[in-house]
Amino acid sequence: MNKSPDKVWTAGMVVIGDEILSGRTADKNIAQVASWLQVQGIRLTEVRVVSDDMGAIGDAVNALRDAYDYVFTTGGIGPTHDDITVDAVAAALGVPVVIHPEARDMLAAYYAAKPGGLTEARLRMARVPEGADLIPNRMSGAPGIRHGNLFLMAGVPHITAQMLDGLTGQLEGGAPLLSETVGCWTAESEIAHILREVEKAHEDCQIGSYPFFREGQVGANFVIRSTSRDVLNSAVDTLSEALAEEGYDFTPGGI
Amino acid sequence: MNKSPDKVWTAGMVVIGDEILSGRTADKNIAQVASWLQVQGIRLTEVRVVSDDMGAIGDAVNALRDAYDYVFTTGGIGPTHDDITVDAVAAALGVPVVIHPEARDMLAAYYAAKPGGLTEARLRMARVPEGADLIPNRMSGAPGIRHGNLFLMAGVPHITAQMLDGLTGQLEGGAPLLSETVGCWTAESEIAHILREVEKAHEDCQIGSYPFFREGQVGANFVIRSTSRDVLNSAVDTLSEALAEEGYDFTPGGI
Repeated sequence: MNKSPDKVWTAGMVVIGDEILSGRTADKNIAQVASWLQVQGIRLTEVRVVSDDMGAIGDAVNALRDAYDYVFTTGGIGPTHDDITVDAVAAALGVPVVIHPEARDMLAAYYAAKPGGLTEARLRMARVPEGADLIPNRMSGAPGIRHGNLFLMAGVPHITAQMLDGLTGQLEGGAPLLSETVGCWTAESEIAHILREVEKAHEDCQIGSYPFFREGQVGANFVIRSTSRDVLNSAVDTLSEALAEEGYDFTPGGI
Repeated sequence: MNKSPDKVWTAGMVVIGDEILSGRTADKNIAQVASWLQVQGIRLTEVRVVSDDMGAIGDAVNALRDAYDYVFTTGGIGPTHDDITVDAVAAALGVPVVIHPEARDMLAAYYAAKPGGLTEARLRMARVPEGADLIPNRMSGAPGIRHGNLFLMAGVPHITAQMLDGLTGQLEGGAPLLSETVGCWTAESEIAHILREVEKAHEDCQIGSYPFFREGQVGANFVIRSTSRDVLNSAVDTLSEALAEEGYDFTPGGI
């Protein structure tokens, strides 16, 4: 894997599915894809959640392909009539849908011993936009699909996890974004001025403030992010000293 | 509330925050806003997750305002330096940011008895795009913000829940999308043909198939959605009969 520390590598993500937009299913793929991308040195920059609609999927995929280095989709690659991601992406790319011979072989092997065998519905899972490669998936027979910088993955989170695992270390990325957390049992509004000062004093450093309410008390975690370990350490030190100076107890590592 | 059953009312949503895109925090607001909108007879049609960036927030808000009847945002309306939603939205709307007098009064009352009182940082939470109204929030002093068809809400899910509660029944919507679920301990690929036939036979009806793997067995829930109770019932009956005919056990209400 070629690490290019100067370039910031970016990714967009399209989450496909009426079940997310109806509120029936809480998405778990955004967090898992985001965390995985961080480790690859690729920054997830935008996510769009769209319905099971050819036009909506195609428009989102094309918009994000234009804007970012990589695009990931989750959902809609199964065997049922509402699984239209492959068709929508092929249309967006302007290529036909074809049966991938290796995918057909994988499915045939997987379903050989199962009731019904390789039915027409199951064979749908071997369909790919022409020119695509497969992303292996040890969990079920159906592979994910890679087409250039575009990655089509499952909607079921633990299958997507397998596909991400198969892609680990395969994508060119930059310096991973590092982060450290400092927690404090105080209202974030009390120390807002400190956060602002510390961020301003450190280039290539962002501080996010994430308030919470637990055990009847307000608190907040301050997450400092940087691609530079030195900058990160310096920002954590400055923040900790400033909190101590104003008399706040804080918890390195977060609460 | 005026119910217009013929028009399909739509909404877009912008989830704002680096913490979601870094994978640090799993979003809970999409599912809660989506579920709430269903009951209001408004269909969540697209969600965009963007970073704490003025341009990214403004572009997403404007794109969704053009496309849908309502737009909801979550995140970035707190007291710290990374809370820039009000500034980004005001810029996108082309209006200045002003202090809302009622919001200032609410915050003054809320912080009167608290250490530090109404600091400059806390007063940030009274800032609104000019022309905005407030969305009450019983949980903390800080209100949400309404500007025409645009609703700015908190990132912390239980505060957003309070704001949604304050908006319940206030928005014009259409006929709510109804749904019924039928569960089956089978691979969805085995009965894909049945789902397709049932959906084809019923206009104004969508069927989603959501596979799972539990207790060492595969199964799937089939969610049938329609704005018509009659169509919904008929589709559930047809699906149930077809499953029974082919010898599948199924569970009304889902598994």
